[in-house]
Amino acid sequence: MAPLILNSLREPVVQAPMAGGPSTPALAAAVCEAGGLGFLAAGYRSVESVKADIAVLREQTDAPFGVNVFVPGAPTSETERLESYMPGLIVEAQHYGVALGEPRHDDDDWQGKLSLLEGQRVAVVSFTFGCPPRDVLLRLAQAEIETWVTVTSPAEAVQAVEAGADALVVQGLEAGGHRACFEDAVGVEGTGLLALLGLVGAVVDVPLVASGAIMDGASLAAVLCAGASAAQIGTALMRTPEAATSPAHRDALNRPGQTGLTRAFSGRLARGIINRFQSEHSASAPLAYPEVHHLTSALRAAARERGDADGFNLWAGQGYRLGREIGAGELVRQLGAEMRETLERVAGERPRAES
Amino acid sequence: MAPLILNSLREPVVQAPMAGGPSTPALAAAVCEAGGLGFLAAGYRSVESVKADIAVLREQTDAPFGVNVFVPGAPTSETERLESYMPGLIVEAQHYGVALGEPRHDDDDWQGKLSLLEGQRVAVVSFTFGCPPRDVLLRLAQAEIETWVTVTSPAEAVQAVEAGADALVVQGLEAGGHRACFEDAVGVEGTGLLALLGLVGAVVDVPLVASGAIMDGASLAAVLCAGASAAQIGTALMRTPEAATSPAHRDALNRPGQTGLTRAFSGRLARGIINRFQSEHSASAPLAYPEVHHLTSALRAAARERGDADGFNLWAGQGYRLGREIGAGELVRQLGAEMRETLERVAGERPRAES
Repeated sequence: MAPLILNSLREPVVQAPMAGGPSTPALAAAVCEAGGLGFLAAGYRSVESVKADIAVLREQTDAPFGVNVFVPGAPTSETERLESYMPGLIVEAQHYGVALGEPRHDDDDWQGKLSLLEGQRVAVVSFTFGCPPRDVLLRLAQAEIETWVTVTSPAEAVQAVEAGADALVVQGLEAGGHRACFEDAVGVEGTGLLALLGLVGAVVDVPLVASGAIMDGASLAAVLCAGASAAQIGTALMRTPEAATSPAHRDALNRPGQTGLTRAFSGRLARGIINRFQSEHSASAPLAYPEVHHLTSALRAAARERGDADGFNLWAGQGYRLGREIGAGELVRQLGAEMRETLERVAGERPRAES
Repeated sequence: MAPLILNSLREPVVQAPMAGGPSTPALAAAVCEAGGLGFLAAGYRSVESVKADIAVLREQTDAPFGVNVFVPGAPTSETERLESYMPGLIVEAQHYGVALGEPRHDDDDWQGKLSLLEGQRVAVVSFTFGCPPRDVLLRLAQAEIETWVTVTSPAEAVQAVEAGADALVVQGLEAGGHRACFEDAVGVEGTGLLALLGLVGAVVDVPLVASGAIMDGASLAAVLCAGASAAQIGTALMRTPEAATSPAHRDALNRPGQTGLTRAFSGRLARGIINRFQSEHSASAPLAYPEVHHLTSALRAAARERGDADGFNLWAGQGYRLGREIGAGELVRQLGAEMRETLERVAGERPRAES
């Protein structure tokens, strides 16, 4: 097998794909050019627009990059909860002057995206929300595409490696945006990143990419010590000029606040800065993804458009207050430099234990 | 001010106090003799028995050690929920052939313990469940006792430092046993250790002791990189021969399982391996500490006594499956050696970013 992309990065930094907003080819290009691994998000997008993004990115960098794909799940089994969730959303839609979307289930054009990426021979395809079947990972491997699967537990890690994943993105509960759990379920507590890296590293033998609240070079150094080969950073990149983060979201990321987990916006558990919408609707939101995503899509867009940070999802990791407002490439370089400085300093302070 | 104890440790390892079970003078002595900082637990104990423990420990080591004290809170305001919680506990008590305790509120002899520790001039007094008033910390400082406060958020950290704490124990949500939140409250999500170290380090300027699922030298190295001066380890020590962990608890720590947060046993949020009692009673348990602790004390002791791991609190951190069954001193030395090996290896792999 060819050496993994992770081993050839100048900086052990992977851009989180961040579907549904901040992701742009310019962001991916900046991360790639700074020596990290840029990512495009295929989630929520048409095959054609993903194809166009890949073309734009390839004009901007010769470096390898990845594309993230959502693994489709089953239609909701909480049809009654979904029914009773709708009246509250109708009020929201009226407030923002739009119609609710259709609560439809779809697979986000799974086959179309796999075919596209296979044909485009991108360097890495990462998966979120599930473990692709073995034959899918094999087919990509045969096209010389590296496959990564995002996991949130040791059991998911074992399953992904058995299915053929080349590397795992290990998502701690600190992470912003959607939890990547193979099956969303009520009452399943998340595991902190540091513990999860140890637990996953004990049961699988593939490279791990740490994800969750890595905001500076000190935490980057920390996850490398804890067994990761690189860190995936999302929230830390959201205030860069290359990200398409909306102005109201940027503003919220620059203010004090608390993050919390919610299904209110999409029907799947995700972490965002707690705002009015999240406070009012989290308790009643059903397990219904992407049905709720489609329901709220237009009203979230309308709230975003009018700069109302109380009406759409403010995805952010638990460390978001440590974010910086600088260019994406500069951030990647700063994280790398700080990481090396941290490792040298801490290693130097701890030369030996002899008394 | 005198240099902090933390700076003089041969290994940056602090024993978690682990009130209510595993804590023994032998455990503290072993950690001290291996170059870490041993701790005694004053919580749930009489002043006389704490005094006796200190005397025993001083016979076993000349090294400095700490004593942990619970900060008293207010009586429960959830009297109705406490009332309705009792019938289920009565059934449990009958099952284990004991009477329920009195659901009384007390302050765990706060003044008595402060006077004892002031007089004993132990090296460090750490606090859990709240921030002591400024004059208490001052009084201990005047007796040349270092004061540490356990915190779970940046706001608590600022409050503790303003009150005069010399150092903070930063408890991530991965940690086993009781959450140290100044006020227990429903719906407050915990923060992962790595994120919390960064957030706390950004707002205070005192040494931090990282707590939560630190089970090996790799995670010890990680928290040092993330800004901690040392790691507090609890679960990792519970299977050592020096700990008074009950046989059924030891056995549970050596088996697969999931941890979860619960108020079922004590009325205050704590993390333990999910067993029958925790599953059945967590949803209805009130915020009522130490009222529920006293209610369940005898039935937990009876379950423990008969080796029934389904009837008492199996406190454990999220990383418990990574535990080892070795001597406490040997564990401290192994963690230190692994930590240094990790730092040297990772620092060596990342010498520079030049392409």
